[in-house]
Amino acid sequence: MNYDVVVVGGGPSGIQAALSARIAYPDRTIALVRREEIALQIGALSHVLGSLGSLGESIFPDRFLTQRDIELIVGQVEGCQDSQLRLHDGRKVSYHKLILALGGRPEPLAVPGSDLPGVIEFTRDYDCLKRLGEALVSVRSVMLVGGGRTGVEITAELTRSGKEVTLVESKAHLLSGLVDPEFGQVIEDELIRIGATVITGYGVRAFAGRQSVLGADLADGRWVTADLVILAPPFRPATQLAEAMGLRVDPANGVIVDEYLRTSAPGIHAVGECAAARSFFATERQRTTLMSEAMAQARLAGSNLFTINVAKSYSGSLGSFSVKAGELVLGVTGLTELKAASLGLQCMVGLAETTDRHPPGISGANKVMVKLLFDRCSHHLVGAQVVGGESTGECVNMLAVMVQKKMTDMEIDTLQLGTHPLLTPSPLGYGVIAATVDAVRNWTPTERGLLVRPIAAASAATATPRKGRSDSAARSK
Amino acid sequence: MNYDVVVVGGGPSGIQAALSARIAYPDRTIALVRREEIALQIGALSHVLGSLGSLGESIFPDRFLTQRDIELIVGQVEGCQDSQLRLHDGRKVSYHKLILALGGRPEPLAVPGSDLPGVIEFTRDYDCLKRLGEALVSVRSVMLVGGGRTGVEITAELTRSGKEVTLVESKAHLLSGLVDPEFGQVIEDELIRIGATVITGYGVRAFAGRQSVLGADLADGRWVTADLVILAPPFRPATQLAEAMGLRVDPANGVIVDEYLRTSAPGIHAVGECAAARSFFATERQRTTLMSEAMAQARLAGSNLFTINVAKSYSGSLGSFSVKAGELVLGVTGLTELKAASLGLQCMVGLAETTDRHPPGISGANKVMVKLLFDRCSHHLVGAQVVGGESTGECVNMLAVMVQKKMTDMEIDTLQLGTHPLLTPSPLGYGVIAATVDAVRNWTPTERGLLVRPIAAASAATATPRKGRSDSAARSK
Repeated sequence: MNYDVVVVGGGPSGIQAALSARIAYPDRTIALVRREEIALQIGALSHVLGSLGSLGESIFPDRFLTQRDIELIVGQVEGCQDSQLRLHDGRKVSYHKLILALGGRPEPLAVPGSDLPGVIEFTRDYDCLKRLGEALVSVRSVMLVGGGRTGVEITAELTRSGKEVTLVESKAHLLSGLVDPEFGQVIEDELIRIGATVITGYGVRAFAGRQSVLGADLADGRWVTADLVILAPPFRPATQLAEAMGLRVDPANGVIVDEYLRTSAPGIHAVGECAAARSFFATERQRTTLMSEAMAQARLAGSNLFTINVAKSYSGSLGSFSVKAGELVLGVTGLTELKAASLGLQCMVGLAETTDRHPPGISGANKVMVKLLFDRCSHHLVGAQVVGGESTGECVNMLAVMVQKKMTDMEIDTLQLGTHPLLTPSPLGYGVIAATVDAVRNWTPTERGLLVRPIAAASAATATPRKGRSDSAARSK
Repeated sequence: MNYDVVVVGGGPSGIQAALSARIAYPDRTIALVRREEIALQIGALSHVLGSLGSLGESIFPDRFLTQRDIELIVGQVEGCQDSQLRLHDGRKVSYHKLILALGGRPEPLAVPGSDLPGVIEFTRDYDCLKRLGEALVSVRSVMLVGGGRTGVEITAELTRSGKEVTLVESKAHLLSGLVDPEFGQVIEDELIRIGATVITGYGVRAFAGRQSVLGADLADGRWVTADLVILAPPFRPATQLAEAMGLRVDPANGVIVDEYLRTSAPGIHAVGECAAARSFFATERQRTTLMSEAMAQARLAGSNLFTINVAKSYSGSLGSFSVKAGELVLGVTGLTELKAASLGLQCMVGLAETTDRHPPGISGANKVMVKLLFDRCSHHLVGAQVVGGESTGECVNMLAVMVQKKMTDMEIDTLQLGTHPLLTPSPLGYGVIAATVDAVRNWTPTERGLLVRPIAAASAATATPRKGRSDSAARSK
């Protein structure tokens, strides 16, 4: 078998890369090789056990590819030589251009008892989810290990479906490394409000049980009972094939790629979880862990295969995502205050509190908290964290556009943004504008002279959850 | 009475201008003069008769001003001379800087019978809303005259509350001049779906009744029965005071202002509905009719009074708003295809259909339609129309940022945007990206050479509602 373009990997980044290649190169032959018989929409899997209703809903329909003249080959790639992939059953697939979308695999968890029946690792494949779904039918108490995005969302879904759920995270806060502590705390509070138990700061020392798991000993000596344990560890890049092919690989972060997602070998690209791209803010390469990053990489790689469009280069991984827990949505883009500090970026913080409908007394209004970070030198927006209702999912995309376009505080303050009583904060207190004004007022020249809030005051926010200050535009009432 | 800053007008632009002045000039004395005893949050008034629950919820709390050391003066301004306002009761208010936020008044409707009891003009003041609320208690059938934003939203609210509502719009489509016809049609279909009657293309010839209105004769001879008629005409700028003060006024569009919202007289600014600012796209001055425009003007005028910050100039009125009717939300920013054509702008159109949750089978998913317009020369995004669920209110703000930052199709295609099963379209079919790809694929160089879709094909969309084409990235399944 011989194709102009071959994509290895059936996850979202592989699919998107194949689709983008199809649009950019309508006359080329394209094949997608994946090892799974049944492919899942992996972005939705945390919700298979709840909102999504059934596992069937999450199955990726193969006709989505075949209708677009993308050949689907199911098989495990065992090696690659002279522009030819070798599959487990001896089939050979030749390519002119290759896109590796190899995905990731869970970080191993070295905890005694992990092999007990009833301890299931959330590996994102069909069999795992089927087993989980079956196991859940008969259990009452569930323990989630890992307070990242997956752990938080599964905890919320299972709690809502009536299980007794305990979420255990060894770091001091949920979503550690992804959000500033005060936002991790907001999510923790919401999980507790809907009925979950949350333990942070102590990991699992050992799982215990006989025929099946009965619970776990935590590092602080506590015992947590559980009929079922779900491990939700972070994923690491799956780079085995890339290493075997002799590509440059940073084992911790993935296959090394440039701004066109090209690897060290000509004609071979890598995208998504297996790829180590540069950060948007620093030159270091980093893991690709977010769908927003993987999709942009896949679109760009797919359309820069035989030709290069310089306007379509990857600007570096930004870190945009949203998480829903209970009634709350948390959206994040760019740097957190902690991450900015670790990079040596001096930032001004702007805060605002408002409601996502107005006037605040209207039914269905959720509280909104906005935290913006502006670079002190350039005044560019470099990061945003928002908590609110469901519109937060799109609100944070607006903020992601602002960061990617390097918008300054003044530019944001001059924006015309629409408001609507049933859909957004008040025109007098639109959260993003109000938080920008909060940042600006502390460093712009006033009639009294230049007034700049000391950095210490801003970074104090990382230590204690700060309340939104009484900014005159921050409240809509 | 003597103040550094005096704002005339108690609507949202007056309030926002006073708040922004307070932040920019913390040491100045500021007063706001308004004629209403009770001020309302006028952006929310279409919903007072429904979602908002009660008129009381929409009352603007005066403490919002007084707590920020902004003096509130209730009185009708009758004239102005030598930097001194004269109120109806003889009081005098002197200013150093003046901001006029005079608002608008309904366009007169020259229809016989408009003075019958039971015909109420929606004037946005407390007394009008109180009368309307009282009248609604005892009526069954209501006729709305005017299919603009207010007419559409009141129709939706009253229909939902169980009234028999007929909406009459003399133009061929609802939201005429604000959206392209196919989007007016989508809103019309939704109003009909929830139970309203919609008549477009024929205006009212005369209202008829004796003690009270009984109905109306339409231009096509039809008779529509109604126990109550609500007139929702467009508003025109209230410029009487500005004219009396000798300011340059364009009677149709308002008080003429520059990019710092300065009028023709030194020290006097005008903002909001009474101000005629430039369009974002053309040099013509136009009416300010949208909250998004009025709020930006007010923020800028308020902070550019005694000092000028060149980074904070008004970039011209963009036209961003959202409307909710039934379950649908329509969001618009920038140019429509019709408006672009009338300005002589040659545009490429990109379309996409998707769902606002994913996979599409998930409960609560709404259909999403996106229409984007890109300038053929610069490839800048110049306009967007989106129909979807409640997240459309923020999604269109993201698009408004893109238009204001003059983003190109390629820049949008390289963006990292977050997706979430419960909050946004699928990562493989995020509507804004998919519609951009739809526009791009028709004019980017391909291996076969440059392929540009003829303009005729794009503008045909204005004649017949076009269906989203089967773009390979447009569907999430």
